Amino acid sequence: MSPPPFESWFLSRFLPHALGSFSLLTGAQNGSVDVLDLLQGWGSGVGTYDDFNTIDWVREKSKDRDRHREISRKRRQSITALLLSVSDAFSGWLLMLLIGLMSGALAGGIDIAAHWLTDLKEGVCLNGFWFNHEHCCWNSKETTFQERHRCPQWKSWAELTVGVTEGASAYVVNYLMYVIWALLFSFLAVFLVRAFAPYACGSGIPEIKTILSGFIIRGYLGKWTLVIKTITLVLAVASGLSLGKEGPLVHVACCCGNIFCHLFTKYRKNEAKRREVLSAASAVGVSVAFGAPIGGVLFSLEEVSYYFPLKTLWRSFFAALVAAFTLRSINPFGNSRLVLFYVEFHTPWHLLELFPFVLLGIFGGLWGALFIRANIAWCRRRKATRLGRYPVLEVAVVSLATAVLAFPNDYTRMSGSELISELFNDCSLLDSSKLCDYGPLAKGGEPAGNLSEGTVGQAERPAGPGVYTAVWQLAMALLFKMAITVVTFGMKVPSGLFIPSMAVGAVAGRLLGIGMEQLAYYHHDWDMFHGWCSPGAHCITPGLYAMLGAAACLGGVTRMTVSLVVIMFELTGGLEYIVPLMAAVMTSKWVADALGREGIYEAHIRLNGYPFLEPKEEFVHKTLATDVMRPRRSDPPLSVVTQDGMTVEELEGLISDTSYSGFPVVVSPESHRLVGFVLRRDLVISIDNARRCQEGIVGVSRVIFTEHTPVEAQGAPPPLNLRAILDLSPLAITDHTPMEITVDIFRKLGLRQCLVTQNGRLLGIITKKDILKHMAQMANRDPDSILFN
Amino acid sequence: MSPPPFESWFLSRFLPHALGSFSLLTGAQNGSVDVLDLLQGWGSGVGTYDDFNTIDWVREKSKDRDRHREISRKRRQSITALLLSVSDAFSGWLLMLLIGLMSGALAGGIDIAAHWLTDLKEGVCLNGFWFNHEHCCWNSKETTFQERHRCPQWKSWAELTVGVTEGASAYVVNYLMYVIWALLFSFLAVFLVRAFAPYACGSGIPEIKTILSGFIIRGYLGKWTLVIKTITLVLAVASGLSLGKEGPLVHVACCCGNIFCHLFTKYRKNEAKRREVLSAASAVGVSVAFGAPIGGVLFSLEEVSYYFPLKTLWRSFFAALVAAFTLRSINPFGNSRLVLFYVEFHTPWHLLELFPFVLLGIFGGLWGALFIRANIAWCRRRKATRLGRYPVLEVAVVSLATAVLAFPNDYTRMSGSELISELFNDCSLLDSSKLCDYGPLAKGGEPAGNLSEGTVGQAERPAGPGVYTAVWQLAMALLFKMAITVVTFGMKVPSGLFIPSMAVGAVAGRLLGIGMEQLAYYHHDWDMFHGWCSPGAHCITPGLYAMLGAAACLGGVTRMTVSLVVIMFELTGGLEYIVPLMAAVMTSKWVADALGREGIYEAHIRLNGYPFLEPKEEFVHKTLATDVMRPRRSDPPLSVVTQDGMTVEELEGLISDTSYSGFPVVVSPESHRLVGFVLRRDLVISIDNARRCQEGIVGVSRVIFTEHTPVEAQGAPPPLNLRAILDLSPLAITDHTPMEITVDIFRKLGLRQCLVTQNGRLLGIITKKDILKHMAQMANRDPDSILFN
Repeated sequence: MSPPPFESWFLSRFLPHALGSFSLLTGAQNGSVDVLDLLQGWGSGVGTYDDFNTIDWVREKSKDRDRHREISRKRRQSITALLLSVSDAFSGWLLMLLIGLMSGALAGGIDIAAHWLTDLKEGVCLNGFWFNHEHCCWNSKETTFQERHRCPQWKSWAELTVGVTEGASAYVVNYLMYVIWALLFSFLAVFLVRAFAPYACGSGIPEIKTILSGFIIRGYLGKWTLVIKTITLVLAVASGLSLGKEGPLVHVACCCGNIFCHLFTKYRKNEAKRREVLSAASAVGVSVAFGAPIGGVLFSLEEVSYYFPLKTLWRSFFAALVAAFTLRSINPFGNSRLVLFYVEFHTPWHLLELFPFVLLGIFGGLWGALFIRANIAWCRRRKATRLGRYPVLEVAVVSLATAVLAFPNDYTRMSGSELISELFNDCSLLDSSKLCDYGPLAKGGEPAGNLSEGTVGQAERPAGPGVYTAVWQLAMALLFKMAITVVTFGMKVPSGLFIPSMAVGAVAGRLLGIGMEQLAYYHHDWDMFHGWCSPGAHCITPGLYAMLGAAACLGGVTRMTVSLVVIMFELTGGLEYIVPLMAAVMTSKWVADALGREGIYEAHIRLNGYPFLEPKEEFVHKTLATDVMRPRRSDPPLSVVTQDGMTVEELEGLISDTSYSGFPVVVSPESHRLVGFVLRRDLVISIDNARRCQEGIVGVSRVIFTEHTPVEAQGAPPPLNLRAILDLSPLAITDHTPMEITVDIFRKLGLRQCLVTQNGRLLGIITKKDILKHMAQMANRDPDSILFN
Repeated sequence: MSPPPFESWFLSRFLPHALGSFSLLTGAQNGSVDVLDLLQGWGSGVGTYDDFNTIDWVREKSKDRDRHREISRKRRQSITALLLSVSDAFSGWLLMLLIGLMSGALAGGIDIAAHWLTDLKEGVCLNGFWFNHEHCCWNSKETTFQERHRCPQWKSWAELTVGVTEGASAYVVNYLMYVIWALLFSFLAVFLVRAFAPYACGSGIPEIKTILSGFIIRGYLGKWTLVIKTITLVLAVASGLSLGKEGPLVHVACCCGNIFCHLFTKYRKNEAKRREVLSAASAVGVSVAFGAPIGGVLFSLEEVSYYFPLKTLWRSFFAALVAAFTLRSINPFGNSRLVLFYVEFHTPWHLLELFPFVLLGIFGGLWGALFIRANIAWCRRRKATRLGRYPVLEVAVVSLATAVLAFPNDYTRMSGSELISELFNDCSLLDSSKLCDYGPLAKGGEPAGNLSEGTVGQAERPAGPGVYTAVWQLAMALLFKMAITVVTFGMKVPSGLFIPSMAVGAVAGRLLGIGMEQLAYYHHDWDMFHGWCSPGAHCITPGLYAMLGAAACLGGVTRMTVSLVVIMFELTGGLEYIVPLMAAVMTSKWVADALGREGIYEAHIRLNGYPFLEPKEEFVHKTLATDVMRPRRSDPPLSVVTQDGMTVEELEGLISDTSYSGFPVVVSPESHRLVGFVLRRDLVISIDNARRCQEGIVGVSRVIFTEHTPVEAQGAPPPLNLRAILDLSPLAITDHTPMEITVDIFRKLGLRQCLVTQNGRLLGIITKKDILKHMAQMANRDPDSILFN
């Protein structure tokens, strides 16, 4: 484990949680960073944090239109230019193809590697250590279909070391090896993350949301992050920690997107265009995580993206399909299915079942809201106390606890996705799992002849001993998962929330499903089961309950609705279950929203203090622009530049005295009539350039922003005309504009600042940060967590 | 048929095509219509057309937030208010439930009725004339499964009248009855439309798009339109005209949405909220048309909606599900399937097949582009020439031609959806259709033993005589459908484009599929078929080709992509075919876009001259706000109101002299410093009210817009303070703002007008109409069709 100095050095310099603090965000206010070359500094920029800045969407989009116009103009002149324009038009699609291929391939690799490492915790293959259990036994002829997993080539650690497969000593050896491997994997993961790419930790979705909304976090989507996140994701998943790979896969796909953007000038040089690509990339991430391309696109639309034009919709869809197709070609699950959990249910649901489905929704909502509170409280404690200083130790302890507690219980020992698969499964006659251990049908007076119908073997039966054991183990697993996930999410390893949330819900759902099933079996004469659960008929599918529970819990945590339903629909492929899914997911969302408005990602964004203007949240207070703008009443007056009255020296003085990122240009200080807006950075560079290169520019030279340079008096130095850098179209609102409209304008147009006028006189300025601060104040949010000022 | 005077009276007063002309749109410029009570005038407003006006989204949304704030404030005061606030929060969901139920029920009714009337063209059921053919033969015990349709209860017209079922006389009688019924149905349809609800004609989607973008067309979504459209849709579909019910179902669902809005003050009184509901309703329409709820939501998002917040996404999804579920409960297709065309393919596709799939895409794109051009040219001719004066005659002629030409060919005689179903169908052994008449397998040297595999009966086989007949008939049907659809779409009956477009594509696709299949059978030794189409294997599914062709043609016509793929995906339920679908649909879109940028709906919007600001179209020209604003250089100066310098008389003079819908308020005429904006209508009402009710207001009273009313000189009449009606937050841009940004601002904020300033002085004003005019000018579009000035 790394020594404390290393830890604290890291904490203060790299970690976004520690980052989102004061000093960093004043950097943004300095605004001395060129928005053009941000997000480009691969690794080189590590350690410099003046990149936390907000982009100006209007400007970026204007720039792209200019570029486009230039290409259209040239197109008519030569064949080369025409070809260039065609290649420009198709570069977006090519980029999508590349992202899809790469993300699909990476996801396939991650799946295979994680599967192998997970199995390595239990044993090793004698044919070659690089085979996983299933692969190892694939061609084994000595095993039957039933005992496929007991092939001689695969040796558990106990078999290899002490030579026995059963008994106490074998158990102890296997237990020990399981814990050791788990510790090793998790330690490696956290070490790699902290040593090489601190941004690779967590799920990445809160940061990606923030980046997509127009924030710059340099290096967050860089090469190093990609490499380290891919490797450590495999390790983290294999270590058996209660985390999933879905969120991190979105991050990985976005890294791919960002890296490929560098191949095309169009995307490299334009932050807005790049964000369109990243929106598509996040769709790709979910597409490969679940094999659900449509769900992925809707996830990007509903949950992650900020600016999502129709063009992006089409491209996202294309990229998501390519990725899903690539993944299927790699076939990591060996079943030539696209999806992670393939389920097929054979029994339709009954209208009365909506009641237990809604119950699952309520459970999901409650758990979602409680999980968010507990997790945020825990993360806050981590930041505030000494706990946060030893992240490696933290991971090791949690990993040890997870491994020690998980091994004895079959349902926690298996990986999260295996658990979910098992719980979703609809028992068939051939199934040998404990969950499918049902007793014989003949009970009481039911004639066995009922079996002769199409429902052979699927009729309602009493639970056997296996099911009872499973129920107890599942109940324990539920408690364990609920507790451990709260402390796991937010640790310094790549960690997604989808799988753990779904696991909790699936366990709860399956338990309820089994309960309902047994109720229907023993009480089929009750009114509610009448005409539906007749003896010998199969009426309740516990696997469906598991699926609904999983959807409800995931919905409660993330507050996804449509995209979640579509993802689940793509998993099952049957329209039949959309209504139950919708019932469970909407209930879950309503319940969770009643207990706390934010989903887990918004909560983490706020925890980290990112300047994110939530598009879903309505601003409801009745304040006016004048209440928010600067300068306030007690502040010094607004720093303005006059269009023809200031000298170079005066301007330099203004720049050094203030730290604003730009200045309004007015006709005269008395009239305060707005002419335009000039960015601090542009001003600094232009004056420097002029002083170096332009003849006769001295401190007393006048700086002119007008169209026509006036003739100077004899003997005076020549004036410096800077109209070229003047933004002639700053948006201005009146001081009486309600803040709700102002917030809307900022959100929809993606502004960075807006000028405020009163009766045509320039009065002040509102920046995005002012708005965020104001919104936080109005919502009475814990003022300590607000990092701007 | 109605006499010419009736026709021309209608033409000049009711028809939107004739409508979108000059005189109507100047009404909009007068702006004397209150945006609040528009769209409310059920029937009563028929004949008055000063409703063509654009809403102000900012104002509507502000109003809703005020209402919301009011409710939140009151909530704390009493239990009743609390309950009211809860009911308010849930009223949106309740509304969705109602729309879903009603639309689902209507769609089910339409399906059943259309099915019955369609069968009535061929014969009648002796058990009761209200049974359709299938229903009539449902319980017939005298027919085998194979000859299910030849039950004794069902009599063809020939059987009933001349007593024979076969032979020339029977054919002639059936032919005649078919034509007579078709004529009767279509005449009834056009008569009802023209007599009771002229808005019920066409598909309705162009108008709904325009309404959703913020335009007012009073009565377009009213009770009468709903009733008449529902009835005439059944008649039009049953008449056998080349039209579908999908577009009109969207219109019907939107009518339901609009009508139910009246139950809730929240939606009745707010145009923006109402449009959210209508967006959801259009999703419902597609959901019931195809049984594809997810596709419906995406259709609304991609194709129809203008403002689609996430909340609407959730609600649309809910409503679409409810509707689909209701429709399934009614079970109009008798197969308990949700979807219109249920297909199940058994063979995976091969990568090489992407080549014919792309060919289908190219065909679809070409056909789409050509169809749009031909249809628009035809509609333009209809508007410009005498043809347009006799719509009833037109419908009768087209209907006669359709019936006469369609009857002899099996594939045109059946309804469009039956045709598509048949073409999508994958031949099984039991199938008795001509398309499945394949010869025996044993040909040349292939051992029949190959059949013993799992592909029994599905192996590639030579086409039998039935298939050859079918191919010829399909080729004829293709030509016929292509020609007749061009003249059908746009007639004065409810007519959707989805089914005819899909039918054209399905025929073309099936033909290509059969060709490929036979190629593979006779040349399975070719390199391209090597290792894939081995003898005895089933490798090509003509039904899949039909499906892809249908998707490609529909895509070419409407330019839908994602929603179309999702609809098709919901029809087949298999992720397997998403890649071929995507390939066909994207190719089709690219090809069609290369030949003409607009989809059929945009083309019709432009044809009708609706003020629609296309959200997909980028404005690429480098003009500035100053080039677009009014007044132009040669115009008289901008009419402004000063904040404290004008008398009541002066204001009244200004109002009567000008026809602007609002006036900027400035500090003084010299300074032209902007204070706010006042709407003409508000000004007129306030002055009238003040003159009537307020003591001492006379012509020479000063009108004040300032916060504090100044003390008037002794003896002068008391001033009239109208600050209450002043919009203090008009958006202002500078004269140098590029038009691309201005267009973006209008589009995103949904503005109606925007003020233009130069160096802080008010210079002019830009309205949405100015922008549309400018865009049309810049695009060099046929200036005759542009209706604004």
